Amino acid sequence: MKVTVAIDCMGGDHGPAVTVPAAVAFLRHHPGARVILVGRSEALEPLLSGPAQEVADRLEIRAATEVVGMDEAPATAMRNKKDSSMRVAIDLVKEGRAEAAVSAGNTGALMAISRFVLKTLPGIDRPAIASAIPTRKGHCYFLDLGANVDCSAEHLLQFGVMGAMLAASIDHVERPRVGLLNIGEEAIKGNDTVKRAAELLRASGLNFHGNVEGDDIYKGTTDVVVCDGFVGNVALKTSEGLAQMLSSFLREEFGRNLLTKLLAVIALPVLKRFKSRVDHRRYNGAALVGLRGVVVKSHGSADAFAFEQAIYRAAEAASNRLVERITERMAAMDEVTT
Amino acid sequence: MKVTVAIDCMGGDHGPAVTVPAAVAFLRHHPGARVILVGRSEALEPLLSGPAQEVADRLEIRAATEVVGMDEAPATAMRNKKDSSMRVAIDLVKEGRAEAAVSAGNTGALMAISRFVLKTLPGIDRPAIASAIPTRKGHCYFLDLGANVDCSAEHLLQFGVMGAMLAASIDHVERPRVGLLNIGEEAIKGNDTVKRAAELLRASGLNFHGNVEGDDIYKGTTDVVVCDGFVGNVALKTSEGLAQMLSSFLREEFGRNLLTKLLAVIALPVLKRFKSRVDHRRYNGAALVGLRGVVVKSHGSADAFAFEQAIYRAAEAASNRLVERITERMAAMDEVTT
Repeated sequence: MKVTVAIDCMGGDHGPAVTVPAAVAFLRHHPGARVILVGRSEALEPLLSGPAQEVADRLEIRAATEVVGMDEAPATAMRNKKDSSMRVAIDLVKEGRAEAAVSAGNTGALMAISRFVLKTLPGIDRPAIASAIPTRKGHCYFLDLGANVDCSAEHLLQFGVMGAMLAASIDHVERPRVGLLNIGEEAIKGNDTVKRAAELLRASGLNFHGNVEGDDIYKGTTDVVVCDGFVGNVALKTSEGLAQMLSSFLREEFGRNLLTKLLAVIALPVLKRFKSRVDHRRYNGAALVGLRGVVVKSHGSADAFAFEQAIYRAAEAASNRLVERITERMAAMDEVTT
Repeated sequence: MKVTVAIDCMGGDHGPAVTVPAAVAFLRHHPGARVILVGRSEALEPLLSGPAQEVADRLEIRAATEVVGMDEAPATAMRNKKDSSMRVAIDLVKEGRAEAAVSAGNTGALMAISRFVLKTLPGIDRPAIASAIPTRKGHCYFLDLGANVDCSAEHLLQFGVMGAMLAASIDHVERPRVGLLNIGEEAIKGNDTVKRAAELLRASGLNFHGNVEGDDIYKGTTDVVVCDGFVGNVALKTSEGLAQMLSSFLREEFGRNLLTKLLAVIALPVLKRFKSRVDHRRYNGAALVGLRGVVVKSHGSADAFAFEQAIYRAAEAASNRLVERITERMAAMDEVTT
């Protein structure tokens, strides 16, 4: 893919130690791509020996002197840190020097800065955070994951458009099925906002499946599941908590005594394949959608493998015209309703 | 325990074939308890030969000619089916002939009939649905699970009281820790309702832990987790969906070929122990709390083992004075605030 990704190398729990090797691995796996590493030169340069030499011609450093703290208030980060690695990475997208930006930094600051620098697309009131999550049938795009805690029916409709365009651009799904997360499949279920959102989605021209319930997410009933940011954040974190509990129970049972430990060794290939099927690192990289540019947020604790997936997602979205697709779709919907 | 439980024998996917054997097993395991089987005599009597003979002196049949359908509108069931097994079971609680009622029938109808017949407790605006769910440290009580899709801060406070009294009465926890489900631990997170609920909970005299996130549920951070019914329902069903997906993936990996199938047989004792730790049947039985009587809802698809757990939970709550405890606590809180 012919795309340039700007990487905030200083963000996340591990900073350049993870982001730089991930960027190098990404370049080695994608011969047409380029990256701009943004951050403190003295932190980045020592990491560019060894395997990085092979891809040096597609790799560039852009110095940025400041770093946004993981706990820093978004407003402060936005106002006071104009030369932060996060800000400079997004500025590069704005200036057209990169097609996408990736950061493992502070989510609130990334959203605030992205929104301030890039602005939202026509017809989009608020950007949303969307992530692919594994399902029985593959994966689905789930949004909003926490950017918007109070959503109107119109916002949910816009999330539907953004989610559908994500599935269309990254997975090349022709007419992605969009589900509205509710507490029952029947149209009479849920609160007033959700009921009205269902009406709007039904009239939108999207491939609207109707209401889905929490268990439909993992059944893979639809390609996209839409909900407000409070509900989405709770559903995602609840899932993380449950997966961690189950995996720790499984470890405990196999670690109980010498015999069970032996069984674990024997069953290792099976357990490993199971684990890799639901490896959350493979799904790392949540898109900040609805902006005039592609911005992807990596998990703060991502390792190099996980961070590389986030870079890949950003590159895929940009090279498959995510932003343009959302713009076109919103314009088409606007024509229908006006 | 000295308690009489009224059982709606006709409800659920399997009706008397499950509910009657479950009631008999419950009586055999709890020598002081009594049950009243409510339903069509011709459906119940044939099931009372064999092991039921041993407990015949603590078992009584109360005929009811009608059955509430699983898809019947709650209002219709309430108005038109005065001799349904569900209605008669709840009437028995109202009349003081039973201390608790259990049903695997239509949730909406059970809530509507319970509310109409039993009424809510003083100071409680709306009953909630609460269930114990497994955590790393044991289990926690999670509510509301779908009875209330639009909750005020006051409702969330009342859920906190009800959840704490559930933990106190069933698990004998002295000062149960109550968590408020939110999208961040910081007090500034979340929507206005949740922020105000946190203030009310902090001033309530309950052992309020503060905000918890989705993953805290399974970490067992608190004994009680409170949220509105939309969020709770989504979180619970999302968990069910994820658990089902993971278990089907595990089955698929062990079923892949002859070798992996052999491994599954060898690892069976470990896998079985793992499965039993998270066996949702053990957690069957959601309490309809906030009513002037104990009502427990079993999963519609419960088998006899699962349904027996629901009967047990109802008996435990009644014999440990759940209703009285909530009443006392609400009165004490009322004194503080007025």
